[in-house]
Amino acid sequence: MSTSPRLDRLAGRADITRVEAAELAGALPGADVLLVWDFTSDAVRRCWPGPGPRPGWVHTASAGVDRLLFPELVESDTVVTNARGVFDGPIAEYVAGLVLAVAKDLPGTWRRQREHRWEHRETRRVAGTRAVVVGSGPIGRRIARVLGALEVHAEVVGRRGREDDPEVGRIHAADTLPDLLPGADWVICAAPLTDATRGMFDAAAFARMRPGSCFVNIGRGGHVVEEDLIAALRSGRPAAAALDVFAKEPLPPDSPLWDAPGLLVSPHMSGDTLGWHEDLADRFQDAFELWVAGGTPPNTVDKRLGYPSGS
Amino acid sequence: MSTSPRLDRLAGRADITRVEAAELAGALPGADVLLVWDFTSDAVRRCWPGPGPRPGWVHTASAGVDRLLFPELVESDTVVTNARGVFDGPIAEYVAGLVLAVAKDLPGTWRRQREHRWEHRETRRVAGTRAVVVGSGPIGRRIARVLGALEVHAEVVGRRGREDDPEVGRIHAADTLPDLLPGADWVICAAPLTDATRGMFDAAAFARMRPGSCFVNIGRGGHVVEEDLIAALRSGRPAAAALDVFAKEPLPPDSPLWDAPGLLVSPHMSGDTLGWHEDLADRFQDAFELWVAGGTPPNTVDKRLGYPSGS
Repeated sequence: MSTSPRLDRLAGRADITRVEAAELAGALPGADVLLVWDFTSDAVRRCWPGPGPRPGWVHTASAGVDRLLFPELVESDTVVTNARGVFDGPIAEYVAGLVLAVAKDLPGTWRRQREHRWEHRETRRVAGTRAVVVGSGPIGRRIARVLGALEVHAEVVGRRGREDDPEVGRIHAADTLPDLLPGADWVICAAPLTDATRGMFDAAAFARMRPGSCFVNIGRGGHVVEEDLIAALRSGRPAAAALDVFAKEPLPPDSPLWDAPGLLVSPHMSGDTLGWHEDLADRFQDAFELWVAGGTPPNTVDKRLGYPSGS
Repeated sequence: MSTSPRLDRLAGRADITRVEAAELAGALPGADVLLVWDFTSDAVRRCWPGPGPRPGWVHTASAGVDRLLFPELVESDTVVTNARGVFDGPIAEYVAGLVLAVAKDLPGTWRRQREHRWEHRETRRVAGTRAVVVGSGPIGRRIARVLGALEVHAEVVGRRGREDDPEVGRIHAADTLPDLLPGADWVICAAPLTDATRGMFDAAAFARMRPGSCFVNIGRGGHVVEEDLIAALRSGRPAAAALDVFAKEPLPPDSPLWDAPGLLVSPHMSGDTLGWHEDLADRFQDAFELWVAGGTPPNTVDKRLGYPSGS
């Protein structure tokens, strides 16, 4: 995340100051706009100015805005926008790849390859299996669509239920999740991290998953009680899990997660395909055009909900 | 492949003798029907009776019939049928899993996991990439369809070209393959192994693939000149390959393929999902009903082409 973006279209039109986290406190009060490139940093929270001049607009180069939802910013009139739309397709492909890899036991095959061991096994079809995708934003929807293309029956869970969503039809209310978990072969977390979703995947949730099932988290580390997941994997329910996000990132070398049974660890990269920096920079510059013209930049976050609420 | 199938519906209607390869020579002349369960064996070729009684029907529990295309059987009036249809969906999912795994560098991620190494990388999208699928039978078609569902642009290559295939539209003629290879991100071999396709993936073919591309073989080992593939991978063109089938199976522990750079090895299992034995046995029994009633069992192989030619 250290490479800062090219913002060619702003040349001569804006005074751009690029700062690392340590220098943010000095630069923030005078800025009209803050582009948060390293969305894993807590620097904005630490440096947010008290009374006096503050940026009127904060844009984060991420889908999740959890690092920005501290009281002083939530209660201010500063507009917060996110990079909604950049990550949907990449993350959905990544999740599909994980689902297929687990179903076909590709990790087990490649482990045997290292040992020059030919050991035929029967694996699982994904067509006809059932997924529960927690998160009804663009990422969750795209995951459901791509899994559907592989003939996986995918149910989407959102904060509130509805029967008539134009894209996915039925959205299940979050409070029905306990009833959905036992029927799922795949449970995918693609939710925003808010007070309502923090720690939602805990011992009680994992105990409702079926033996042989698989849990995937591409949301935020805070959705998962990591000790509970390790214990659950040891008990075989779920049988497998893939985490791309963690409570602490980078995951420390001595974390027990690296070696937990059936757990696949990836370094917060599910959405980051070649060209994503350019894509993010392009979209920010599009939003900037709107903003300087007096308009509202797209994907404005409802700071109480923790994500853009409009469609 | 050692478990022999349950054939409950034939009980009392047929005299079933189950033999291992070593006992086949004694049993073959008196049999009306031969079900070849271990399709990797050369036993049928070795034991095929000369003049005199021979099975009138040979069914193989595989899509490929290459082991049965020896002159004495080809020139006889024995009907040969295959298990067309059993493997299409499973193999297409397997190929999609390999394509996504390579695009997202899942093998590289899991290698780093073993070393507790957090190393973010940018990976590739599969949407918008281009695949060439060699093989216009049901397996090749299904692969093209599943890749298409992932927004991969897939071209199908068959023995003869046609513009108006009802399922895939255009089928490219095999002799145009050299022109198609340079444009492909993914080259998938799903062809039957015949005299026309043996060794078709050789140094000349690999030299036409683009840097960064990936070759996948779920056909038969005989399609690939394995030494040429190793050399090609060392030169980085293709950058990666996945082989599920090999000239010699099981792949010997000292084969250089196990450690070839960028090569993923799996033990001929792409089509073998849980329940496949039952599925194969069911279909054989369905065919048996037709055959005893005097009909022709489905999926009769054109022994000169090497696969069922009808649709």
